Amino acid sequence: MKIKNLILVIVVATMFCVGCDCDKPYKMVDGRIILNTPERPEGQQDMLLFAAEPIDVVRVGFIGLGDRGASAPKRWAYIENTDILALCDLKQEKIDKVQGYLKEAGRHAADEYTGSEDAWKAICERDDIDIVYISTPWHSHVEMSVYAMEHGKHVAVEMPAAMTIDELWTLVDTSERTRRHCFMTENCIYDYYEMTVLNMAQQGLFGEILHAAGGYSHCLDQLLSKPEPRWRVERMRIFRGDPYPTHGLGPVCQLLNIHRGDRLDYLVSVDTKPVVGRKLYTNATGENPEDFKNGDQTTTLIRTANGKTIHLFHNVVTPRPYSRGYSVVGTEGYVEKYPFENMMIGSEVEEGVNPNTLGAHKFMPEKERKALLEKYKHPILIETEEMAKKVGGHGGMDYILDYRLVYCLRHGLPLDVDVYDLAEWSCVVALSGISLENGSVPVAVPDFTRGAWNKLQGYKHAMKE
Amino acid sequence: MKIKNLILVIVVATMFCVGCDCDKPYKMVDGRIILNTPERPEGQQDMLLFAAEPIDVVRVGFIGLGDRGASAPKRWAYIENTDILALCDLKQEKIDKVQGYLKEAGRHAADEYTGSEDAWKAICERDDIDIVYISTPWHSHVEMSVYAMEHGKHVAVEMPAAMTIDELWTLVDTSERTRRHCFMTENCIYDYYEMTVLNMAQQGLFGEILHAAGGYSHCLDQLLSKPEPRWRVERMRIFRGDPYPTHGLGPVCQLLNIHRGDRLDYLVSVDTKPVVGRKLYTNATGENPEDFKNGDQTTTLIRTANGKTIHLFHNVVTPRPYSRGYSVVGTEGYVEKYPFENMMIGSEVEEGVNPNTLGAHKFMPEKERKALLEKYKHPILIETEEMAKKVGGHGGMDYILDYRLVYCLRHGLPLDVDVYDLAEWSCVVALSGISLENGSVPVAVPDFTRGAWNKLQGYKHAMKE
Repeated sequence: MKIKNLILVIVVATMFCVGCDCDKPYKMVDGRIILNTPERPEGQQDMLLFAAEPIDVVRVGFIGLGDRGASAPKRWAYIENTDILALCDLKQEKIDKVQGYLKEAGRHAADEYTGSEDAWKAICERDDIDIVYISTPWHSHVEMSVYAMEHGKHVAVEMPAAMTIDELWTLVDTSERTRRHCFMTENCIYDYYEMTVLNMAQQGLFGEILHAAGGYSHCLDQLLSKPEPRWRVERMRIFRGDPYPTHGLGPVCQLLNIHRGDRLDYLVSVDTKPVVGRKLYTNATGENPEDFKNGDQTTTLIRTANGKTIHLFHNVVTPRPYSRGYSVVGTEGYVEKYPFENMMIGSEVEEGVNPNTLGAHKFMPEKERKALLEKYKHPILIETEEMAKKVGGHGGMDYILDYRLVYCLRHGLPLDVDVYDLAEWSCVVALSGISLENGSVPVAVPDFTRGAWNKLQGYKHAMKE
Repeated sequence: MKIKNLILVIVVATMFCVGCDCDKPYKMVDGRIILNTPERPEGQQDMLLFAAEPIDVVRVGFIGLGDRGASAPKRWAYIENTDILALCDLKQEKIDKVQGYLKEAGRHAADEYTGSEDAWKAICERDDIDIVYISTPWHSHVEMSVYAMEHGKHVAVEMPAAMTIDELWTLVDTSERTRRHCFMTENCIYDYYEMTVLNMAQQGLFGEILHAAGGYSHCLDQLLSKPEPRWRVERMRIFRGDPYPTHGLGPVCQLLNIHRGDRLDYLVSVDTKPVVGRKLYTNATGENPEDFKNGDQTTTLIRTANGKTIHLFHNVVTPRPYSRGYSVVGTEGYVEKYPFENMMIGSEVEEGVNPNTLGAHKFMPEKERKALLEKYKHPILIETEEMAKKVGGHGGMDYILDYRLVYCLRHGLPLDVDVYDLAEWSCVVALSGISLENGSVPVAVPDFTRGAWNKLQGYKHAMKE
């Protein structure tokens, strides 16, 4: 008798907790953990291709002005047809610094919100703000995003948008009910290389894409050793799983047209024991907890409904050069980015070379590759090139993200990242944890579109006529 | 209630087939497929550090003189204190070609065995041969290895040594009972870079190694499109899983001291649908089978008992430059090999650079890396350097393999690859298939040492006093 059948017979109808940090019931079918999909509330519609009313001048309030958050209003100050109305942070000096940026850029001073843990709520409650831009610690994203949408604001929130599947359903349902955008500021989808490769892929240069890899190797030993802010290393202490998967997953999901003709079916994760991460926690806190959970390196494999696979990794503690491990395996080509940008199209080898010898297949010459990257440069890159260089922010991609957000809001277009992208990219946090806490069993990825994943065919950036 | 407990209660005692191509019973415990470990037969001892009686002149017979097999006697002709006594192949012209090599090298002609499917048996039955060297198609490895050991011969067999777990237990038991070496000719463990990195790792330069990757990306589209020989593409038609994992896994298992203080605990696999592989099958056979099984890219994750992880991949069909994807993640360093050799030791960054910026951590300069590779060059490389360059064979590593095999046999030393290495590296073929056929569930890796995996501490190459 096959396991499939046995498990099916035994537990198809049963539901029980698997001990993750959420209290939703689960079932195990066919050796796979499956989470319940809540019914879509009466009268609620999906948000596919949702477009809000055009906004002539986009009025924004920023919550969280820390290491990452302070750079957002600084960039927005360079984007036309925007009005920066509000700044919120627990620390006055963070606000002062950003007011300085605004002044430099010739912008008026913004209203200030500080002095209490709830100061941010007043921004959401204003009636003259279109979008709330949230760059606070991970655990506060959901409460702020929901409160903003409930008060009629669009939301742009840092990644990951949430830590549990329950929270992601809350974001999806709130966005669907309030008809407000819930956008995640995943900047790596705007990196010039990923965007150009996406354009090449959409024009068929690599054939059918079968496998892609991405991840986040970024040695943050100094940052994580600091006593303050400590929220990231505290999260690593209590959470086993990939806490930060979206830099790798975002560009790959766009390539694979996720919820636009394909969907993430299931994942499995493995991790190493924590060694360096635990040391860094001790540096930051003076404690050496036996129960430190986050493995130094976490690896996740995902399979899609159409039989494509994704390899994801996370490591922010051991000494490694920065890498997002971006690579793309197509039926007619191959692309990689780290340590160097490389491409191969077709499998022909030089005249007279035995194609079976190890070195027969080579990456295309640099000159040829650069010509291709120029020829297939994404239209959005051409549009933003000059300003992106000037404004900067991770090589310009942060500016392009903000530019596209404002562009789509101003022209009443669907955003580049919808609430289902946000949920699909963020859910790997919770699902990798569930897989690891249960010995690397496969875990089904919820269909956050609730059945609509095959309605659209192919990922597209919306452009005005 | 936790899945652990429920599954435990339900199926801890049950045993049933999971539909792999072997008829052994299985059980599922804790969401993981566990294969039965057969009792060690009465009076049989393990082969850890097994050393046979020294052999002054190593007398060898070769079975299989195809694309790969013909190069082995050619290399042996350059190794002193060896006597090439027998050559076997189904085709006389293959034997003639090798006799030519022997003549060039000033060796006497070898006895010839051909003309029937069973011709090879006569080599095993001779009483003047010490070792039988098997380079035949995958499916014939086990029968030939067992027959040779039963007739008192040591065995060197190409990878993978077997396709099922049953067959691997047969090889282990036969080697233990007959006290004959069962060596697998996994050549990539002798690549100068992998050997030097192993030496550096054993001297602690990378701290504790937590994660390592390896695999086999080799575009064989032309080879697999040929009508003959067809055995490899026929195997791909009927087998879903990683058919060829040992090039990636061998060097990594030596780094992680597998069955010398740690052991492979379990694996999970995912694969893409077959697209290009199926096309190549059609090129070779004219047929287009609906049921073609082998995915174009297969990825496997393994976790060890000590909490280390391994990432393995296989892709021989889509256009990609050759890569074994070798990389090593240590608590104090990082190494990779493809597309270029790169290393980083420690996490310091240049004076004045913010260590949290993306480009802060760099690979060490080429000059420094080359100096390290020279300083830590593996003693075996120094010993064989000159001859390896002269004889060649995948850049010399094939020669080093044969040299070490003869060296250890002549001095009565344990071989570099014991029968447990052979089983651990080869078992990923069958286990990845079982995982995939059951929706990527975790599958426990059998302990082929039957409890002795922690007796030795650390991998060592045996050297004479």
